[in-house]
Amino acid sequence: MTRTTIAPAETAENTADDVTRVAVSTVIFSLRHDPDRDAPTLVLPLVRRTRDPYEGLWALPGGWLDIAESLDAAASRTLAETTGLAPSYLEQLYAFGATDRSPTRVVSIVYWALLRPDAASTQLIDRTKDAPENVAWFDAASLPRLAFDHNEIVDYALWRLRNKVGYSRIAHGLLADEFTLAELREVYESILGRRLDPANFRRQVENSGTLLPTDRFRTGSHRPARLYRYNQDVELTDRGPLEIRH
Amino acid sequence: MTRTTIAPAETAENTADDVTRVAVSTVIFSLRHDPDRDAPTLVLPLVRRTRDPYEGLWALPGGWLDIAESLDAAASRTLAETTGLAPSYLEQLYAFGATDRSPTRVVSIVYWALLRPDAASTQLIDRTKDAPENVAWFDAASLPRLAFDHNEIVDYALWRLRNKVGYSRIAHGLLADEFTLAELREVYESILGRRLDPANFRRQVENSGTLLPTDRFRTGSHRPARLYRYNQDVELTDRGPLEIRH
Repeated sequence: MTRTTIAPAETAENTADDVTRVAVSTVIFSLRHDPDRDAPTLVLPLVRRTRDPYEGLWALPGGWLDIAESLDAAASRTLAETTGLAPSYLEQLYAFGATDRSPTRVVSIVYWALLRPDAASTQLIDRTKDAPENVAWFDAASLPRLAFDHNEIVDYALWRLRNKVGYSRIAHGLLADEFTLAELREVYESILGRRLDPANFRRQVENSGTLLPTDRFRTGSHRPARLYRYNQDVELTDRGPLEIRH
Repeated sequence: MTRTTIAPAETAENTADDVTRVAVSTVIFSLRHDPDRDAPTLVLPLVRRTRDPYEGLWALPGGWLDIAESLDAAASRTLAETTGLAPSYLEQLYAFGATDRSPTRVVSIVYWALLRPDAASTQLIDRTKDAPENVAWFDAASLPRLAFDHNEIVDYALWRLRNKVGYSRIAHGLLADEFTLAELREVYESILGRRLDPANFRRQVENSGTLLPTDRFRTGSHRPARLYRYNQDVELTDRGPLEIRH
């Protein structure tokens, strides 16, 4: 039987026509204040490709799986290497493996995470030092044409996020520990892409038992607004037994 | 740059030490009547391995991803080849990629499906014709030690099934189009692994709006029981935009 040999991952990219290779990519959602609308906007970081295929197009942060590295570790490593970001957890989203998604055969295991605005506000670190413009935050609702099938991947991640926000405390991943009902509503609005009636929203979350009022208030240019926190006794997530914590 | 060569999938299994290979496996849940308890039991098909690694142990149906084949197609093909089963849909469950899960590096994309008892009652077809005992149904609650990390994979699939049954019509995948409330309750009981109070269960499903009563009744040794069907107007699944239909 023939023993197989393969060039290092960094150079094999366009030569391995007869082998299926495994890559990891990550979709990191965060919120950025949009001064035009005075409301938060859902954003994600992208990296501009500096070589074929799709040279010059923006793509999700990611890279090749190393032979001695778990999928989770590869997702964290490649995200840190390309953007400098280190979310507190990454969750596996889906494996994309259409035969025509790349010029060579690549199966991409995609991870996703939410990053609170304070953690996302740290400068993105571009490890391709001669081209500091090669990593940037984009509005999730108006992306350019991305490399590979990455537009489809972002659409799927958005669908999962919208689906999950209804039955879990996932919005909390985009908020500080304490928040006003208006801030929580704006997170939901940015994820769902539509306005919610403030009175209905207040009634629904107050009846859900998932929020606890605090004795503190947000003061500023508006009327003081009570701060809430999530009720940790209510288990709303479904991250399950494979949950990853770093 | 070196052009890579690789032996055919069927023989490369134990030689490809320096390359990550992609496999697919499937977890197919169905129900089988347990005469001892006079109740349905959750079962799944397993295939006995006829070569190393783990020769002689039972494993999930599966095989290698072909270079020109999508992940979904590979899951359907390998399931049919090893068991003869062809569920109406397969859903991607999770990608398992721990570095120590196999003697060589293998990333397994795992699919799952539910099969109604009438579809599962067809004889399993063993394609290794000289060893017809090499594929069989097992009680999901009392599996032997399986090959690779397949016990962990089944545990994860069971967790997802139990998690999903609460907020979707997923139990319907194990039932005929019309069913009694007792039959529906027994499906929930077999999935959740515990008894449910019949009166509470009846009240909850009747209040949920997800079931519609029919004019028909199940007759037999017991008091006639009304047949119900799922209300197709209520969208309860979360299979999403990547839903696969064959």
